[in-house]
Amino acid sequence: MPLPYRWLTSLMLRYNGKSILIDCGEGTQVALKEKGWSPKPIDIICFTHYHADHISGLPGMLLTMGNAERTEPLLLIGPKGLTRVVNALRVIAPELPFPIECLEITEPFQSFSFEGFRIEAFKVNHNVVCYGYSMVVDRVGKFDRTRAEAAGIPMKLWSRLQKGETITEGERTYTPDMVLGEDRKGLKVTYCTDSRPTQSLVDNAVGSDLLICEGMYGEPDKLIKAKEHKHMTMYEAAQVAAKAGVPQLWLTHYSPSLIHPEEYMREVKKIFGNAVAAKDGRTLELNFEEE
Amino acid sequence: MPLPYRWLTSLMLRYNGKSILIDCGEGTQVALKEKGWSPKPIDIICFTHYHADHISGLPGMLLTMGNAERTEPLLLIGPKGLTRVVNALRVIAPELPFPIECLEITEPFQSFSFEGFRIEAFKVNHNVVCYGYSMVVDRVGKFDRTRAEAAGIPMKLWSRLQKGETITEGERTYTPDMVLGEDRKGLKVTYCTDSRPTQSLVDNAVGSDLLICEGMYGEPDKLIKAKEHKHMTMYEAAQVAAKAGVPQLWLTHYSPSLIHPEEYMREVKKIFGNAVAAKDGRTLELNFEEE
Repeated sequence: MPLPYRWLTSLMLRYNGKSILIDCGEGTQVALKEKGWSPKPIDIICFTHYHADHISGLPGMLLTMGNAERTEPLLLIGPKGLTRVVNALRVIAPELPFPIECLEITEPFQSFSFEGFRIEAFKVNHNVVCYGYSMVVDRVGKFDRTRAEAAGIPMKLWSRLQKGETITEGERTYTPDMVLGEDRKGLKVTYCTDSRPTQSLVDNAVGSDLLICEGMYGEPDKLIKAKEHKHMTMYEAAQVAAKAGVPQLWLTHYSPSLIHPEEYMREVKKIFGNAVAAKDGRTLELNFEEE
Repeated sequence: MPLPYRWLTSLMLRYNGKSILIDCGEGTQVALKEKGWSPKPIDIICFTHYHADHISGLPGMLLTMGNAERTEPLLLIGPKGLTRVVNALRVIAPELPFPIECLEITEPFQSFSFEGFRIEAFKVNHNVVCYGYSMVVDRVGKFDRTRAEAAGIPMKLWSRLQKGETITEGERTYTPDMVLGEDRKGLKVTYCTDSRPTQSLVDNAVGSDLLICEGMYGEPDKLIKAKEHKHMTMYEAAQVAAKAGVPQLWLTHYSPSLIHPEEYMREVKKIFGNAVAAKDGRTLELNFEEE
C-alpha cells in the first residue's frame, strides 16, 4: 500500500547507459522524479509478479515515456501472463509512440543476456508465481601477454581477442580465453520481494555485492502472518543474507503496519550485521574492484 | 502526469455520511492519506473519462479498500465502456471482499439520484468521450403553516409531509409541496477537467457554489496547444466561471510544464475575480444559507 513518504517498492539499476527497472507500482514514476531521474531512458522493466503494488504504475509510466516522445522499444520481462496483463492495462494507455516487447519467463531459472550484463530470474515462493532477479555484470580477466605469446597468437589479433571477438585465420580459430587471465570479479545485485525464504533466493544471492530483500514485518509475533501471506520477516531476510554470505543487505517492502522498521534493526543485526532498513530514494554506486 | 508535490486531479465530496470521489489517477489514494482521510468509506467513484491520469489509481484504491476489510458495495459511474475498462484493470486486483457496480452514462445529460443528493453528468468536449459532474444537494422550502391550514391538511400529517412523504388518506392524497414554501437554495459543486469550454459546462455550472475547472495552461501562447489537445487555458476557465455567474472558481489539472500557475492569476482575475490557483489538498466546507 503506498503511503505518504513511502512509495511502493521498486529498484532502478543503471549500467553503461542502460536503465533497468524492477517492479513499477503506483507512484513509481513520481519516486523516480523525486530522485531527479526520468522514466524516459528505461530500457527494461522486470516484474516480480502481477499483484497491483508491483505493476499498477505501468500505464502511467508508459504514458509519461510517450509524452517525452520516446521512440526506442521497451522490453518488459515477467512471469507467464505478462502479455495478457500488459494488454489489459493498456486499455488506459492504448496509444504509445514506441513499441513494447514482452518476454515471459517460463523456467524456474532463466538468464537473459544483454550487451555487457545479464538479468537472471529465479522463481521464489509467494501465493502467486513470483520471481526474484539478479543483475550481473561479468568481468573478463586481464590481458595475459605471456599466455598470448606462449599460444603463438599473432600480435595484430590481440586487441580484438581481448575485446571478446573470436577470430578464424586460415585453419586456426582464436578465442578470447587464449589471451585472457582468469575472469575477474564483476558486479551483482539481487532483488527479491514477496516470497518466503527459499533455497533459490540464497543460491542466487551468492556472490552479490548487494542483496535487496523484503522485510515485511519486524514484530516477532508477525512470523505467522508472514508465513500465511507468503512474505518474509526482517529476521528471515537477514538469515538469507547470512547464508548467502553477501556483504550487505537492504530491507524494503515493509507492511503499512510497520511504521518504524529501524526499531527492529538491533535484533536484525544480530543475525546479519551489515543490514540496513532502507528508505525511499536510497542509492549506491558499485564499482569494479581496484587492482 | 503526477509530479512530486502535485498529484493527479481528483475531487472528494462528502455529504451527510456519503463520500463521492471524482476521478482516481495514480497516487490518489496517497493524496487522500496525506489529508488524513481513508479510501474505505468512499461510496461512489465518478470518472470523467478513461485516460490513465483519471483512472490509473483505481486498482490500488480497490485493493486498499479491500485490505481495510470493506464489504459495502462500491458504485462506479462513468461514460460508456466503464465495465470494460474496470474489468481490464481488475486483472491486477481480481479478488475483492466487496461488490462493484458499474453505471454507464449513455446520454449527453444524466441525473442520478441518491439519498439527499443528485449527481448530474454532462457531456463536455475532449478528444475522447468525457463528462463533467455536478453534485447537487436540493433543499426544500420551509414548513408553511399558513398554506397547510389553508389547504385543510390534518395537523397529524404535517411532519411526515414536511419530511417528503406523500400520503393518501381516504380519497385525498397529500403531497409535501402542500405544506412547504418555495424551495430554498441548496448546494452545488461542479467539476470539469479535460474539455474545451462548452455551453454544457456553462449551463451546468450555473447555480454552483463552487466551480472546479481545469486550467491546463497559463502562458498566453499555449491557447493553440489547448485547442489542439482539447483542454482549457486558465483564461478560458475564468470566462466559463464569469458566464455561469458562479461565486468562486478553483483552477486545477495543470500541465506539467506549468510550474507556477499562480504567476498567471493576475491576468485570470481580470476575467473572473474570485479565481484561485488550487493546490493539492485544498478543501472547503459549504453550508446551507442561514435564514
